[in-house]
Amino acid sequence: MTSDSSSTAGSPEENATSSSVSGATALQDVSEYSGADDDLQKEIQTAVENLECCQSEIESLNVKVAKEILKVKQNYNKIKKPIFDKRNEFIMKIPNFWLTSFMNHPEMSKIIDDVEKEVLQYLTKLEVEEFENINSGYRIKFYFNPNPFFKNEVLVKEFSLGASDQFVSESTQIDFRRGSKLRKRLRDYQKMISKAKKRSKKSEEALPRSFFNWFVENAEDSNDIAKYIKDDLWSSPLQYFLVSDV
Amino acid sequence: MTSDSSSTAGSPEENATSSSVSGATALQDVSEYSGADDDLQKEIQTAVENLECCQSEIESLNVKVAKEILKVKQNYNKIKKPIFDKRNEFIMKIPNFWLTSFMNHPEMSKIIDDVEKEVLQYLTKLEVEEFENINSGYRIKFYFNPNPFFKNEVLVKEFSLGASDQFVSESTQIDFRRGSKLRKRLRDYQKMISKAKKRSKKSEEALPRSFFNWFVENAEDSNDIAKYIKDDLWSSPLQYFLVSDV
Repeated sequence: MTSDSSSTAGSPEENATSSSVSGATALQDVSEYSGADDDLQKEIQTAVENLECCQSEIESLNVKVAKEILKVKQNYNKIKKPIFDKRNEFIMKIPNFWLTSFMNHPEMSKIIDDVEKEVLQYLTKLEVEEFENINSGYRIKFYFNPNPFFKNEVLVKEFSLGASDQFVSESTQIDFRRGSKLRKRLRDYQKMISKAKKRSKKSEEALPRSFFNWFVENAEDSNDIAKYIKDDLWSSPLQYFLVSDV
Repeated sequence: MTSDSSSTAGSPEENATSSSVSGATALQDVSEYSGADDDLQKEIQTAVENLECCQSEIESLNVKVAKEILKVKQNYNKIKKPIFDKRNEFIMKIPNFWLTSFMNHPEMSKIIDDVEKEVLQYLTKLEVEEFENINSGYRIKFYFNPNPFFKNEVLVKEFSLGASDQFVSESTQIDFRRGSKLRKRLRDYQKMISKAKKRSKKSEEALPRSFFNWFVENAEDSNDIAKYIKDDLWSSPLQYFLVSDV
């Protein structure tokens, strides 16, 4: 489990946290006006204290906004759930739906190699589940038909908000079958990556990437792929399934 | 008025637009399964059509979510307005409040030169106003005391969502006083910038930036400064006023 680089985005209301400054700090810092006469200094001090009160009011309203928005989203997530389930049933009737959609996505297609294409033919169902508190995370579930590569029926990758307001990810351990081509391929990748890292410790040289490597790595750069799955493919899969140049 | 580079951010619900695919396209594209027998092909066709219905249902729910969230934000903006007004009254009692806060902001301080520091001593009031439809834009109003640089009492910079889902900005024309040091400084900047642009047509070399140049330019990179003002300084000004290392 490694921390992910991208922090939570959103308006100040949605990220509402109390950042009010204590009266003590205010008192101490207004001393820069010590050149001013006593009356002016007192006036400034009072203004700062009043300003602080306004700020607290605004911040507690921001917390309320955030809570109401969360409630709206939770409510609609409940309404949408059975429709997503129904959608998944229809998708499962279409051979290679997800493989086709992944390969039609301009960014996803870049990270899927030949062996992974073979594996993804067995991917029958995809699910994105937001946590009950939507802002705190989500998981992506990949369901597979029995296949020659691994024994798992479902592989889950979960993103949750860590202590420092950054998403951290965690994923199911893949239970490879003996002689799995995918395991071999992943090992080769990991060797290539560690070599590339040694070669260019400080440079930003792009490291080799692959779908299953993204899945197992929980590395710092793994969030962009999660976003392609969550915000593009899960949001409007048909768009990617039907159109080859999106 | 030039287009701004950053597009709107937000979850799929908040950016809800109908991207459903027409039945005609579906029919046409499923022909890749022409190798399959007639029954299977029909079944796939039906699945795609059903999937399309689910997708439309999900998208119309997304539109509803977006509308409800907008209503929550509008409602609270109304509640917050008088508190922001009161806060502004207190701020106006504190000499150089905004100049101090700007200079304590790590990014804003980088773009304020010596002449601009002099000008910003006359900045008494700052306001950020969201449009009635919050998602479509906002304006930043800078109120000035009478000063030797320009005649305007208020300078407004407005960001609104353009046709291609990108923010475009527009700003008040500055009515300079005769021999204004600020006008001279701005002209020098503009000469420097056009020279720098000629020198490095394709490179990403950072061009010289200044606060008033940002204000008048409405250029493509102008949104980050707007965000520092809107999301940092307007959201929690005291934090910047009181603490010099934020």
